[in-house]
This record gives sequence, structure tokens and C-alpha cells, in this order.
Amino acid sequence: MKMKLSCPMPKFDFDFITLGHGSGGLLTNKLLDSGVFNILKNDKLDKRHDGAFLEMKGEFAFSTDSFVISPIFFPGGNIGELAVNGTVNDIAMCGAIPKYLSLSFIIEEGLPMSEFWEILVGIKDSCERAGVLVVTGDTKVVDKGKGDKIFINTTGIGQIHPNSSIDTKNIKVGDKIIVSNQIATHGIAILSVRQGLEFETTIKSDTTNLNQTVIGVIESFGKDIHLLKDPTRGGLSSTLNEIARDTNKGIVIENTQIPIDKQVKSACEILGLDPLYSANEGVFLAVVSHDKADEIVAKMRTYDNSAYASIIGEIVESHPKSVVITNTMGGKRVVNMQVGEQLPRIC
Amino acid sequence: MKMKLSCPMPKFDFDFITLGHGSGGLLTNKLLDSGVFNILKNDKLDKRHDGAFLEMKGEFAFSTDSFVISPIFFPGGNIGELAVNGTVNDIAMCGAIPKYLSLSFIIEEGLPMSEFWEILVGIKDSCERAGVLVVTGDTKVVDKGKGDKIFINTTGIGQIHPNSSIDTKNIKVGDKIIVSNQIATHGIAILSVRQGLEFETTIKSDTTNLNQTVIGVIESFGKDIHLLKDPTRGGLSSTLNEIARDTNKGIVIENTQIPIDKQVKSACEILGLDPLYSANEGVFLAVVSHDKADEIVAKMRTYDNSAYASIIGEIVESHPKSVVITNTMGGKRVVNMQVGEQLPRIC
Repeated sequence: MKMKLSCPMPKFDFDFITLGHGSGGLLTNKLLDSGVFNILKNDKLDKRHDGAFLEMKGEFAFSTDSFVISPIFFPGGNIGELAVNGTVNDIAMCGAIPKYLSLSFIIEEGLPMSEFWEILVGIKDSCERAGVLVVTGDTKVVDKGKGDKIFINTTGIGQIHPNSSIDTKNIKVGDKIIVSNQIATHGIAILSVRQGLEFETTIKSDTTNLNQTVIGVIESFGKDIHLLKDPTRGGLSSTLNEIARDTNKGIVIENTQIPIDKQVKSACEILGLDPLYSANEGVFLAVVSHDKADEIVAKMRTYDNSAYASIIGEIVESHPKSVVITNTMGGKRVVNMQVGEQLPRIC
Repeated sequence: MKMKLSCPMPKFDFDFITLGHGSGGLLTNKLLDSGVFNILKNDKLDKRHDGAFLEMKGEFAFSTDSFVISPIFFPGGNIGELAVNGTVNDIAMCGAIPKYLSLSFIIEEGLPMSEFWEILVGIKDSCERAGVLVVTGDTKVVDKGKGDKIFINTTGIGQIHPNSSIDTKNIKVGDKIIVSNQIATHGIAILSVRQGLEFETTIKSDTTNLNQTVIGVIESFGKDIHLLKDPTRGGLSSTLNEIARDTNKGIVIENTQIPIDKQVKSACEILGLDPLYSANEGVFLAVVSHDKADEIVAKMRTYDNSAYASIIGEIVESHPKSVVITNTMGGKRVVNMQVGEQLPRIC
């Protein structure tokens, strides 16, 4: 993929990452000085202690994710952007405003410095979009053949929004289930580059930060938002099954109401993939009070990343712990949690 | 290595980790249910949301580390214990009381379930010893040959102790430098298993949690503790060089005062390794007020893990940013930061 070098790369002594860059000695320090610390610059990171010092008061969300996606550059983003957005979104799903991230690299010896730099630029840009700061980090290097280019862990802290009241316990029979945008895009985008498939236009990953949308909705509708979850790995159906399991209630989904891009849908048909199990990186599910659902959808649609927000189903008394989907013909089928692995290393 | 299964392993459907265990679907959930959630059980983790909810008030330290050590089982510990102790110690070095950890696995397909379980037991035990809770986590699986058994990220949060006043800026000329215990043990323990070397007795890694020792010292000596740092990767000399660089002052070290186990010293001589660059996992450096140094050493020695605490040198006006070491004969040499990699994947 062609890379967009929006920040000019500094001069590094090496063209490739070496084992020495993970030694904790001079090379590590040089890499951090000319690379990481400079581009991600902020007061807290600049202290360069073993950890960051943070002033905090109130209730916070704390979430972690390791990203092992392959390929590391894909239509719509790279592993750096995904790593920031992924943890930002997990924090947002807790009803919290993401504030601080830690950033930890496991790099395979031989990664071109230009690729590492491009990933750093992706991290910088997505941090700016989400309004979060990287305040502490770590860099490890493993020998060639013992990793796969780069793995990234981000761990985030966010302050719970005062209006937020996210808790599985708040879910009632009759609650509506909203999906924020078109599904299955990320999974199909990754699969298409892996398989070298060509479609009319490139299908791009939907990776994006959802925190502003989520906080906007929480500000307006507070207690009527009972649960938020982002259906990443395992797709929509695995997340719906988790909700059914955790609430001990049933879920009914109207298949025709699930927003999906026409091209993504065709790709799924060609590839024999069920879009309900395909990963999303810019979509969230909201379980909300039934009488506010339409207003919440309208509010969501004011955000670009949620332009296709739709009510797709509801919480029901019958068939507890099961997710039932009705299709165009009025037929019904039970949708289970994904069992094996449809597409490994999707995030 | 023979494993000590202190907690009986539950029945898993698989003998080995498969790609499906990282799918985010049913297998991931089963692995978490019967494995991770059960053994690490606590109120916050039990919520099973995308993130943990934490009540916090005051000043906190936040630190991350990814662990890629090879081999994953070694004399004195395993990668799970190391991952807990490593982040606990980084938090402690900030003058903070470690409280919460996130835990993220990147597992190579094919890892025996029994080894994963043994690592989980190590994590549980070391969390208990350090008094920390794992409150959120993540599990990814990569295809065979794209990782190396298991990598672990831990990210921690700890509350700054009210008596703590850790800041490079507090370091003055004349301050004494204390090392808490015998150095170079971890590096030599790992090297000896990698190379299949035999010594009279097994050299064991010094991996341990230092938080109780550090907090004990801070409680008694507060403002007289100017800086704490643990010389892990890159060893004592890299950490001393970082202190010299960050303070813009010089450091003089008395070689004869550095505590080192006789057998570790012999091993270094045989292997041609400089113990000053060998990694430590249970040692910390303290830069302290010169008039309190003896008392601080005495206090440290009341803890088993700091029985060999010693004043090894001091901060000087001359040769800013340089570390000079004097040897038995009165000779002097400049010790630089480690340049390349003496021993990759040591932590």
C-alpha cells in the first residue's frame, strides 16, 4: 500500500529495527528520542519516568487491548490507528471520556523504520482525533520469525460521564437495540487485501474513534442508554449473544433493518461469509429505553460515523440467552456466538 | 522445567490453544470462563464489560510493559510472574502503591493448555503477593510461527504514596546512590538456561515484587528519597546513565561496593559478560539524601528482597551526564549506556 507520510520522518541511524532497539540501552533511547517521544510529545510523556503521573478524581474506566492485525497496513488505516481507536472505543463503551493511553510495541526485528514511522504517525493522528494523550509506553523487539512485523498494546483510562448509567442490570424487556452504522466493513476490507480480491471500489475498514458520538448521545439521553458494546471480533452476533447471556433475556433481530453497504454485502455472498460474524471497528450497539429509541437514532445520525444508525431489534422475555433473527420472508433462525475463527488476526 | 501445579487445572475442551480461542466468540468465552476469570476472580473483573470501573481520587502512577522473555519458564519464575512483578515494580518506582492491573495475552497457536494454566497460576500468585487485582484483560491468538509461545502485556495503576516526593529535579550533588540487592542475577539465570550451562547450584532469577519494600522506605524517609529506578533491561549501567543524562550531573560508582553473588560473578567471567549490563528483575536503585543514606540502607535490609542493600556511589558536580566507576586498584573508567543487545528477550 502507498503510505501517506504526513509528518516527515526524522533521520534514524538504521533503516530497520534491530534487536538492539529493544535492549533498554542506547539504541532504545535514540529510537525513543528521535521517534516516539518527539511525535507524541506532551507534558506527561516528556517526564520519561517508568510511569506517568496522573491526577484523577471520580469514577474511571480502564481497558486494554493488544492488536495483532495482519496486514499492518490496510485500506482505511494501519495497526497504529486501529490500536488507538480500539481502546478509545472500549473506554467509550463504558460511558467514559477517554483521556490517557499507554502504548506498548512488540516489534519483529527487521521492520523497516519507514513503516514504524508511518504507524507512529497513524497513532499521533488518531490520538488527536480522539482527544487522548499517550502518557507512558514500552518497546520490545523479538528476533526475526518470532513475531509478525509489529504487535501493539494500548491500555486506556477514561472518566465516566456524569450522565452515564451503563449497566447490564438496567436492561429491560422491550428495550430497543440500535446499531450505529453499516456492519461487516472492517472484516471484509481485511479479507479483501489478504486474498487480493478486487471490487468495483476499494472496501475500506471502518476504523474510527466513536467517543464523541457516544458522549454526545450520553449527554442527551443519559439514563436511557442501558448498555453500549462494540461488535469487533466475533461480529454483531457474538456481541448480541453476550448481551443475551449476561442479561438472561432473549433478543429478536430484524435482519432487514441491519444496515450494510451493498458492496460489502455482495462481497460476503461471493466469499460465503456471514456479515453477522464479520468484524467491525467503527460500529457500536446501544441497548436503550424503547420510548427514546427513535430520538436516539436521530441524534446518532447527526454524526458522520453513525449516519446509518438503525433500530435493529429488541429485548424479549421469551427464549432467554438466545438471539433469534427474522428474515425477509418472515422466517426465523437462532444465531449463535461464533464458534471457531472465521478470520484470524482481524484486530 | 518441571512445573509446580499449585492450582489444579480445570478441564478444557482442548489440549492446545487454537486460533479460535482468539476469535472473540464461543471458544474465547469458554477459555475465559473456565480459565482466566475463575482463577483471577474479583468483583471488578467479574463485571465482564469491555473495561473495568474504578473509583479513584488523588495522584496516580500509570505504567505499561510487554513481556517477551524466552524461555517462558525459567529458574525462579515464569513469564506470568515476571509480567506482574515487572509492572508492579514500575509503579512502585513512581512512589506509588500498585492497585490495579490490566492483562493482555498474545498467544501463539499450539501453546499447550497446561503451560497457559501454569502461567495463569503464576499471575494469580504474584498478584496476591503484591496485593494487586487484575481488573480487565484481552486475549489474542496468532498463527503458528508468527509469535513465540506467549507474550504478555500488563499495565498498572497505583496511588502515589502521600509521603512520596520522587522527581529527578530533587536530585542534588552529594546524594548517595543505593542498590537494593545483588545485581545481574536475572540475566545470568536466563542465559544459563538458554545455553544449557551448569553451575554448582542453579542460579535463579530474582523476579519479585518490590512494592512493600519501596513503600516501607517511603513511609519512613519520604522526601529524602529523590528517585527510584529498577535497572531491568540494559542493567545497572544503563539506568545510571539515564539518571546522569536526566539530571545533567555526574555519577561516581565504587565497583567494590556493588553487591553481587559469587556464583553470578563467576558465571559473568566465564561468559565474558559485564554484570553492569546484565538485567535485574528484583533490584532497585534509590538516589537519596546523603545524610540519611545509612539509615535507609538499614531499613531496606529488614526486607528479604533487599538483604544486600548497599551505598554504591554518589552524584557529583564534575563530568555531567557521565558515569565513572572506580575499581579495586583505584583506577577509573567511564561506563556508557549499553549500545547494542547483550542478551535479547530478557524480559
